[in-house]
Amino acid sequence: MQAEIITIGDEILIGQIIDTNSAYISKELNNIGISVYQITSVQDDKQHILKALGEAEENVDIIIITGGLGPTKDDITKHTICEYFDDTLIENNEVLRHIEYLFEKYFSKPVSNINRMQALVPSRAMVLKNRFGSAPGMWIEKNDKVFISLPGVPYEMKGLINFEVLPRLQEKYKCPYIIHKTILTYGLGESVIADRLDKWEDKLPNYIKLAYLPNLGKVRLRLSAKSFEKEKIETEVNLLMEELITYVQDVFVGFEEDDLLEVIIGRLLTKKKQTLATAESCTGGAVAKMITAIPGASEYFIGSIVSYNERIKTDILKVSEDTIKKHSVVSAAVAKEMALGIQQLYNTDFAIAVTGNAGPTKDKTDESVGKVFIGIATPKRVFVEEFNFGQPRGKVIKRTSIKALELLRKELMKNT
Amino acid sequence: MQAEIITIGDEILIGQIIDTNSAYISKELNNIGISVYQITSVQDDKQHILKALGEAEENVDIIIITGGLGPTKDDITKHTICEYFDDTLIENNEVLRHIEYLFEKYFSKPVSNINRMQALVPSRAMVLKNRFGSAPGMWIEKNDKVFISLPGVPYEMKGLINFEVLPRLQEKYKCPYIIHKTILTYGLGESVIADRLDKWEDKLPNYIKLAYLPNLGKVRLRLSAKSFEKEKIETEVNLLMEELITYVQDVFVGFEEDDLLEVIIGRLLTKKKQTLATAESCTGGAVAKMITAIPGASEYFIGSIVSYNERIKTDILKVSEDTIKKHSVVSAAVAKEMALGIQQLYNTDFAIAVTGNAGPTKDKTDESVGKVFIGIATPKRVFVEEFNFGQPRGKVIKRTSIKALELLRKELMKNT
Repeated sequence: MQAEIITIGDEILIGQIIDTNSAYISKELNNIGISVYQITSVQDDKQHILKALGEAEENVDIIIITGGLGPTKDDITKHTICEYFDDTLIENNEVLRHIEYLFEKYFSKPVSNINRMQALVPSRAMVLKNRFGSAPGMWIEKNDKVFISLPGVPYEMKGLINFEVLPRLQEKYKCPYIIHKTILTYGLGESVIADRLDKWEDKLPNYIKLAYLPNLGKVRLRLSAKSFEKEKIETEVNLLMEELITYVQDVFVGFEEDDLLEVIIGRLLTKKKQTLATAESCTGGAVAKMITAIPGASEYFIGSIVSYNERIKTDILKVSEDTIKKHSVVSAAVAKEMALGIQQLYNTDFAIAVTGNAGPTKDKTDESVGKVFIGIATPKRVFVEEFNFGQPRGKVIKRTSIKALELLRKELMKNT
Repeated sequence: MQAEIITIGDEILIGQIIDTNSAYISKELNNIGISVYQITSVQDDKQHILKALGEAEENVDIIIITGGLGPTKDDITKHTICEYFDDTLIENNEVLRHIEYLFEKYFSKPVSNINRMQALVPSRAMVLKNRFGSAPGMWIEKNDKVFISLPGVPYEMKGLINFEVLPRLQEKYKCPYIIHKTILTYGLGESVIADRLDKWEDKLPNYIKLAYLPNLGKVRLRLSAKSFEKEKIETEVNLLMEELITYVQDVFVGFEEDDLLEVIIGRLLTKKKQTLATAESCTGGAVAKMITAIPGASEYFIGSIVSYNERIKTDILKVSEDTIKKHSVVSAAVAKEMALGIQQLYNTDFAIAVTGNAGPTKDKTDESVGKVFIGIATPKRVFVEEFNFGQPRGKVIKRTSIKALELLRKELMKNT
């Protein structure tokens, strides 16, 4: 089974937004054994959409369209679909009732005319319920091909994919099993790794593909295969991956996270019934935000102090003024006292502390842009590591937050 | 002039990476008056790439291909281009010298065989210098159409676009002027705005397009036009934008880009030399993170308390236990005491406080999922507003954070 994703919207083609929907849908389809043949982004233009639909119908079995379903005049997808299938729009009662419910609940007012039009759907379409918005999803079949139209707002699209689209596709198609296994290496260039793997790669069976994904000093290596014999292919890919690792043992860091770091941390802390707090300077709450993005975080996360200003470090976190004077506010000594300070103040088992300069300027500190200290306090000890994450500001904040969680995870694993 | 962007790589079609290159290239092309007709992401597969090239050649004048130029076996773009143009690969001296230079400088060793192959280019291609890597860009002309092939690594691609591609395109084509003007509104739904603009929109000249871009409580409105008469079209779009703003005066926040809420808030606070702190429960640091993402935030942002656990609210923020017992922890009364608590503790002029239930479950509180109270403390008063942001968790957190900044901005404007 092959699918094409068509994303509709001038905002994509003028570079105003990055199309993240396609990656999400691709990943979800892959998980249930459906390959994505192509992703096509087209303009808010009827002729262009019709052309893309026609080409997709020739190439694939499943066509997923996102965007252009809003209530405004630039949203033309529904009319275009009608033209494509030579169909007409009719008011769907189920959708209308849902829109009425949303208006009643969130706005306490009757449905406007413009939103009432969102209840119009092509007569041959099966409606897919949008739990998080007013524009319905649509499912149209033609000669054993399926056309699925979804709103472009990411939350709404994701809800529809998970609750409506995937279960129906799994019911309709007997899909093969697709396996992707990726490892992470750090410290060797793509070409050096390729040199080492040269002969081994040539002997790979033709239904198993090796891909190199280089990015800023790290290279991910991915093996991919597709088969109806799930167990056979899984065993085979796992064995090959073990072989592959022997070639890159010295730079092998791990398997790509099936799980986000913050999920793993949450699981470990919940299991141990232990607690965590953070004290953040240059990350400004980014670490706490990652941790609390996970449902159930209140079980183990007590809270955070964002000590952006120096006096919060001394007054609230009880970092000594002498330490700051002696070592500067961006230092291992301050990171250590921050970690111990928050651990004591919030009375937690573990604590993360971060101090650094995210840039773009040197600020009041004399420390170079990108320099960061991360402190981890555990029930047994406290330690600090130093990093330089370069520039720009956003990257420094993100890499620092991830690294902090990574250090904590290692520590939690040890204590298991 | 119209362009198509073809991005090559299985990693895009399995959802392992988000294609950010296309948005970057689209924006840059738009800036020099070249419209992007379509973005197409295809597999690392020769037949598929050939098909995409053929279709693009029919539709547009400029074809930009990214990806598949690395030194490894899964990188097949160069061979495929050769086949498309019935050409052969020859070693390019200039490229070879550049690769030798990179190896000497960064690895202090001679070029490996595998990297030496990167100096092979189709004989008819003009080479574009890659300042940040070893894979060269290529420029091939055929019947007045231009094919440009670039590596997929973002910073290499960006260097090539800016130093090599854009200047050459501007030299070759006389391009029209493209103008996009976008404003930001907060607080009204897309359909309510569309209702207000209904008649005005109908009277727009057909070469000027209005687009609605809704996203979590904000709606961006964009006017776009394209013309060889730069001044005329600029004046016209500016006048129309002024008209448009009169319809949405009450929810108009500013023009895009420079005018993120957190930037505006920073500007206002800096000007007044006033300070801000946040006390966050369900947002878990997300508000502080947004504020501190802006360079220079340390001028006005003192810090935050993330009081995820109830005892932090009482022990640190000094919310009274009676208030929590009487009103529950998700209540206007608690939001108010949190705002006053952080304002006093951190000694700031302004404070934002947030308490709510982001879901997915009702948690320990009995409050419905999505219910949120936002408190704002100013030098003169404190007030709380109640919201229900529905589901899911990520949306509640994001909408709450944006709404909190929105409320603060309004208050700061009043006090100007």
